[in-house]
Amino acid sequence: MARQGLKAPTGRIRLGMVGGGEGAFIGGVHRMAARLDDRYEFVAGALSSTPEKAKRSGEALGLKPERSYDDFAAMAKREARLSNGIEAVSIVTPNHVHAAAAMAFLKAGIHVICDKPLTTTLKDALRLKKLADESGLVFMVTHNYSGYPMVRQARAMVAAGEIGEVRVVQVEYAQDWLTEKLEDSGQKQADWRVDPARSGAGGCVGDIGTHAHHLAGFVTGLGVAELCAELTTFVPGRRLDDNVQILLRYENGARGMLWASQVAPGNENALKLRVYGSKGGLEWRQEHPNQLVFTPLGKPVQTLSRGMGYVDGAASRVTRIPSGHPEGYLEAFATLYSEAAEAIEAARSGGKPDKAVMFPGVDDGVAGVAFIEAAVKSSAKGAAWVKLGGG
Amino acid sequence: MARQGLKAPTGRIRLGMVGGGEGAFIGGVHRMAARLDDRYEFVAGALSSTPEKAKRSGEALGLKPERSYDDFAAMAKREARLSNGIEAVSIVTPNHVHAAAAMAFLKAGIHVICDKPLTTTLKDALRLKKLADESGLVFMVTHNYSGYPMVRQARAMVAAGEIGEVRVVQVEYAQDWLTEKLEDSGQKQADWRVDPARSGAGGCVGDIGTHAHHLAGFVTGLGVAELCAELTTFVPGRRLDDNVQILLRYENGARGMLWASQVAPGNENALKLRVYGSKGGLEWRQEHPNQLVFTPLGKPVQTLSRGMGYVDGAASRVTRIPSGHPEGYLEAFATLYSEAAEAIEAARSGGKPDKAVMFPGVDDGVAGVAFIEAAVKSSAKGAAWVKLGGG
Amino acid sequence: MARQGLKAPTGRIRLGMVGGGEGAFIGGVHRMAARLDDRYEFVAGALSSTPEKAKRSGEALGLKPERSYDDFAAMAKREARLSNGIEAVSIVTPNHVHAAAAMAFLKAGIHVICDKPLTTTLKDALRLKKLADESGLVFMVTHNYSGYPMVRQARAMVAAGEIGEVRVVQVEYAQDWLTEKLEDSGQKQADWRVDPARSGAGGCVGDIGTHAHHLAGFVTGLGVAELCAELTTFVPGRRLDDNVQILLRYENGARGMLWASQVAPGNENALKLRVYGSKGGLEWRQEHPNQLVFTPLGKPVQTLSRGMGYVDGAASRVTRIPSGHPEGYLEAFATLYSEAAEAIEAARSGGKPDKAVMFPGVDDGVAGVAFIEAAVKSSAKGAAWVKLGGG
Amino acid sequence: MARQGLKAPTGRIRLGMVGGGEGAFIGGVHRMAARLDDRYEFVAGALSSTPEKAKRSGEALGLKPERSYDDFAAMAKREARLSNGIEAVSIVTPNHVHAAAAMAFLKAGIHVICDKPLTTTLKDALRLKKLADESGLVFMVTHNYSGYPMVRQARAMVAAGEIGEVRVVQVEYAQDWLTEKLEDSGQKQADWRVDPARSGAGGCVGDIGTHAHHLAGFVTGLGVAELCAELTTFVPGRRLDDNVQILLRYENGARGMLWASQVAPGNENALKLRVYGSKGGLEWRQEHPNQLVFTPLGKPVQTLSRGMGYVDGAASRVTRIPSGHPEGYLEAFATLYSEAAEAIEAARSGGKPDKAVMFPGVDDGVAGVAFIEAAVKSSAKGAAWVKLGGG
Repeated sequence: MARQGLKAPTGRIRLGMVGGGEGAFIGGVHRMAARLDDRYEFVAGALSSTPEKAKRSGEALGLKPERSYDDFAAMAKREARLSNGIEAVSIVTPNHVHAAAAMAFLKAGIHVICDKPLTTTLKDALRLKKLADESGLVFMVTHNYSGYPMVRQARAMVAAGEIGEVRVVQVEYAQDWLTEKLEDSGQKQADWRVDPARSGAGGCVGDIGTHAHHLAGFVTGLGVAELCAELTTFVPGRRLDDNVQILLRYENGARGMLWASQVAPGNENALKLRVYGSKGGLEWRQEHPNQLVFTPLGKPVQTLSRGMGYVDGAASRVTRIPSGHPEGYLEAFATLYSEAAEAIEAARSGGKPDKAVMFPGVDDGVAGVAFIEAAVKSSAKGAAWVKLGGG
Repeated sequence: MARQGLKAPTGRIRLGMVGGGEGAFIGGVHRMAARLDDRYEFVAGALSSTPEKAKRSGEALGLKPERSYDDFAAMAKREARLSNGIEAVSIVTPNHVHAAAAMAFLKAGIHVICDKPLTTTLKDALRLKKLADESGLVFMVTHNYSGYPMVRQARAMVAAGEIGEVRVVQVEYAQDWLTEKLEDSGQKQADWRVDPARSGAGGCVGDIGTHAHHLAGFVTGLGVAELCAELTTFVPGRRLDDNVQILLRYENGARGMLWASQVAPGNENALKLRVYGSKGGLEWRQEHPNQLVFTPLGKPVQTLSRGMGYVDGAASRVTRIPSGHPEGYLEAFATLYSEAAEAIEAARSGGKPDKAVMFPGVDDGVAGVAFIEAAVKSSAKGAAWVKLGGG
Repeated sequence: MARQGLKAPTGRIRLGMVGGGEGAFIGGVHRMAARLDDRYEFVAGALSSTPEKAKRSGEALGLKPERSYDDFAAMAKREARLSNGIEAVSIVTPNHVHAAAAMAFLKAGIHVICDKPLTTTLKDALRLKKLADESGLVFMVTHNYSGYPMVRQARAMVAAGEIGEVRVVQVEYAQDWLTEKLEDSGQKQADWRVDPARSGAGGCVGDIGTHAHHLAGFVTGLGVAELCAELTTFVPGRRLDDNVQILLRYENGARGMLWASQVAPGNENALKLRVYGSKGGLEWRQEHPNQLVFTPLGKPVQTLSRGMGYVDGAASRVTRIPSGHPEGYLEAFATLYSEAAEAIEAARSGGKPDKAVMFPGVDDGVAGVAFIEAAVKSSAKGAAWVKLGGG
Repeated sequence: MARQGLKAPTGRIRLGMVGGGEGAFIGGVHRMAARLDDRYEFVAGALSSTPEKAKRSGEALGLKPERSYDDFAAMAKREARLSNGIEAVSIVTPNHVHAAAAMAFLKAGIHVICDKPLTTTLKDALRLKKLADESGLVFMVTHNYSGYPMVRQARAMVAAGEIGEVRVVQVEYAQDWLTEKLEDSGQKQADWRVDPARSGAGGCVGDIGTHAHHLAGFVTGLGVAELCAELTTFVPGRRLDDNVQILLRYENGARGMLWASQVAPGNENALKLRVYGSKGGLEWRQEHPNQLVFTPLGKPVQTLSRGMGYVDGAASRVTRIPSGHPEGYLEAFATLYSEAAEAIEAARSGGKPDKAVMFPGVDDGVAGVAFIEAAVKSSAKGAAWVKLGGG
């Protein structure tokens, strides 16, 4: 349990944030995640593009006035010149801002931690990837579910051949918070997510479908070759899809189904992955993330538990507390921050992080956007088969 | 709990069986189901088309030698002439025999209980339906999962509007027994199920996909208008599909996904239905059939339990024992037999059974075959959208 | 799956019943259980001690008038003389009748299947045991939970040393149906169970505590040496205990806790056993009886499922249908009836049943009554430690 | 979700720590908990009583050398004199050090956060209570499970009468890590916990039995009047109890059972509480802490989920992220730290925290020690009934 212990937090990484001011949800999550393992120090922000709100938010979070900006471009420029300027930035705005903000900080030589989906168009995503690749800077996209230890356990088991050749992938991410027309109430989270101008062409498919898509790819190591997507809008007057049903053809011949919904009453954040191979299966649920179910063919069902002695090193190195004491969403998120910290610290001295370090990078971000574009295109054609573009 | 009590079993229904001899599985289930509520007396059979086997099986089951046949046509003819001849027959053969056998008994004026899928072609199904409709005889197709009390509870709740307008249907039936090439071992169940000549054009889709399709329709009251089906054969050398992934468009605009698989390790008979509407959701799992999960939007998740005072009359009338004492697969199967008994007993006196009596009929059988044909056709076109034929 | 198949039911056992008329619950269960595997024929009864009710019940169940009695003593005498008289009798009356009825039939040379608790006093139980032992007749006490396949699996695993030396037993049986004063409503089941004259000195402890006690003993093979029992009556005005909490000291030094309650809202028939040894643990729940959880120390939790290839022969020989198709309470009850049938059939020819045949006998019945007496005595002393009498 | 947001962390509380150096477990937990909500700054420590180890641990954690002590008494004295000295101290040593350390810091005017059990004797606990009460300082005992939102939800529901009058309490805390003689391996956690000199007279009963005892009291609001405890040592050669079975009599007449075990294979940190009243029941499990099961008599079982709109304010004010995104052990621990922070911040200005603030205090610590002493005494008398001392 490498994270719990006495690892020196020598020289916390100076971190800034774009977005995440008053009324935001995910900004607070990023800050708690950055704090948990004590590898970051939050020192600057452009927390809102509304000056007054940016100011209030900065004060509330204890930023020094001169490090609280209302313009990410200005922030990138000025921080790059400060001797104690930020080394990394978290971009936690609505989707349409990601591309420009990420490019500004990359150009300023600052490592980037960016929320998903990476951008609102594949074209932007590919431009951003080019810049990120050339910069040599650390670039993390917060497909945060890959920070859960038992997700890493699943990935290690698939890679080790414990379920044989992967044949079937069943992945889903169901929520219910948009079952009614919440956006009409002015609720901030709902408001921008259903607005194509800020969210991009995908609604539910971009917001949570991408998480399901990434999780399946992360665990199986397989890419999607083609898909057939039925995107539906059930709530009258809503401008983007709120229910997503997709058939997937993986590169190795495996077949998959992906369901994402924000109109499924009783589902909170019901992300669930099942993978079946020629020798066994695996099942993982985000709402009870400390367990992984392994079903070797013809043998008793096994429930593996985070923190136990038998778990793979890839899972145990990102675990903080003993088995039976649940770790949750914030811990998984914090793990990604600590993985990025490993890479950033290595970069300080011109090196590379340990091979075991693992986090979603710009390529994962591009793949997510390619997935959204293909799904939207397929659905527009009446749910026809479409090949995935991108990388 | 109407079934447990003192209801007079006056005049058990004389029952025959076609198929279900040595090595068969489902025949024994039908016999136990017929026996549980004491409404039937098993008196004749053409238990195998192999004379020696038919004879041995008849003896083993206590049939009188003269009531043990090796030819269903001869059986239908002779039983029709006997003063104590069978009143009903159960047809539990491989699929390709269903149509001819059912027609023979209908023509002989004998009520029919037929396993699913009804026939191997839609054309046959429609011919059979015509005959059944004209005959006025009772015709039950054993989509047995509709015999579970909590499935009936779900149907009643949807009908009562408790989940609002149905939007999303997620149904699946996963097994693992064909993960390896069991048919090569000579195992009888596997053998005929993967043989197009005996099973029909659908493998997994016909064997268990039809159960999933029927269950969703039974609970929601909705028909499928179009589907897009990806049928896959994962086990090398197998001649029929062993994994089925389908997008569904329901007549009311609801959207569905159906997954059926016989190559998903760790799944025994994992039939599971989830239905989401504008006001709530329902979830039911065959492997734990005494519970029904109801998720009214924004309220605590409710788990309803068979036998409790709050369950709908439609569920409590087909329940035998108190809540917490699990009823299982045989009880649900027995319920269908008892429902058919109600209809057969009513027919004895030229009447109709009580309105509460409910069992899948020939129309359900036709719908199942139409579903198979559409799925096979869609898949043959590379998983294109196909409208459902039939009724 | 020996029970499903073609086993010849040649010569069904002629069965009678004492009790189980109108308004009774358990009589119907016994009849369905006797019917499921087709080893019995129900031909005579003293279904009630009220003549009119006995008559009506007999008619409703299709008994011939001359085989429908209102007095078990007369029934025993007459049936013993008939050439086609009953070979076995099921005694399903309130507890206070068990002893006299069982003795009457034993004396008449008729095999006995008796509900639990065996008698209302240990003295009676020991007298009955003496008579049963001397008679050489089959005597089964329906501690029915021992008929569940996965309970037998648990027993086999403990016996095989898979959990090492047993150290800790946690067993409980919780219900909620007596949370309010149901007996005041005239409900028949509640009425006699809370009446010391008919139920005996124990209320909840006798009604369901004995099931928990037997289950733990059946699985572990261990006897209770001493106990310390707190019997409580929570519902004002009730005459017998409705909540039972007991510390147990087993003969081998293991320690146990037993909780039985009929006033625990949300519990239907929540019988649950957990056993922990030096190498592993086992957990079984009656409400989901097809699974058994096995926890080998330091390894993933295993969930074993009835019907799978890896289950012990002791479990698979009493299984009817494939895994994933749940068997329930009636099937387990039916298994006891079929086990008794094996013994009765063997007795017909002067032999013994196969060694694998297993059912609770008169010794188990005596142990149950000794348990009740010790618990009542302990509680009367303010929950002091008391040694178990009996055997 | 008050904790997630923009609450100003103005002036973090300066925190010190006694214990928690190399090889310790709970020290790291306290530090993460203190960090999560950004209310504390960790600035001083006596992390070990071994000078070299204290030094190394302090360096590893980034303490300034002059704030890293090897003697808590010296630390208390010096920190009290510093202008930027610590305002609060966390005492996370083995049990035998708690009393002296807590007294030293109280005398130095420093707020105390102390691990449980409070002390190794009731006499010490009462002396400490006296000092704490007189000091007016904040004193928190980390019965950390009371920090879980759904535990607070349960408490609020009991207080609101939703389950009626409490009748039955079933509480348990099972682990398996001491099933074998781990202490012989030199494992630090095991080593001191089974040593009476460092752990006190109770082993398992003190280590985890106290958590179960506190949880039940916290939720029900009831105190234990008498108990009858069977403490057992199953592992040969172990010096303290490793399995605990207790009957409880609550002050209001409710009856309880408490099971704690460290030798129950398959149990990780299986703390579970069930409470039944005259109108309903509640069930909560630490291993899946975001759900609370509520069983109103005669109605469907309800599963309440942390973060949903219907939860009580007492639960939602200590929640950080939306429902369905699990919070775990560290979050609950962090909640206690933030609750203490509220009290410490209020004390800075001579005030009291908001009434909603809630954390276990010195009285809870005394009650825990009284519970241990009574259990040890009862067991020594052969499991006789003993009244609880203390307050």
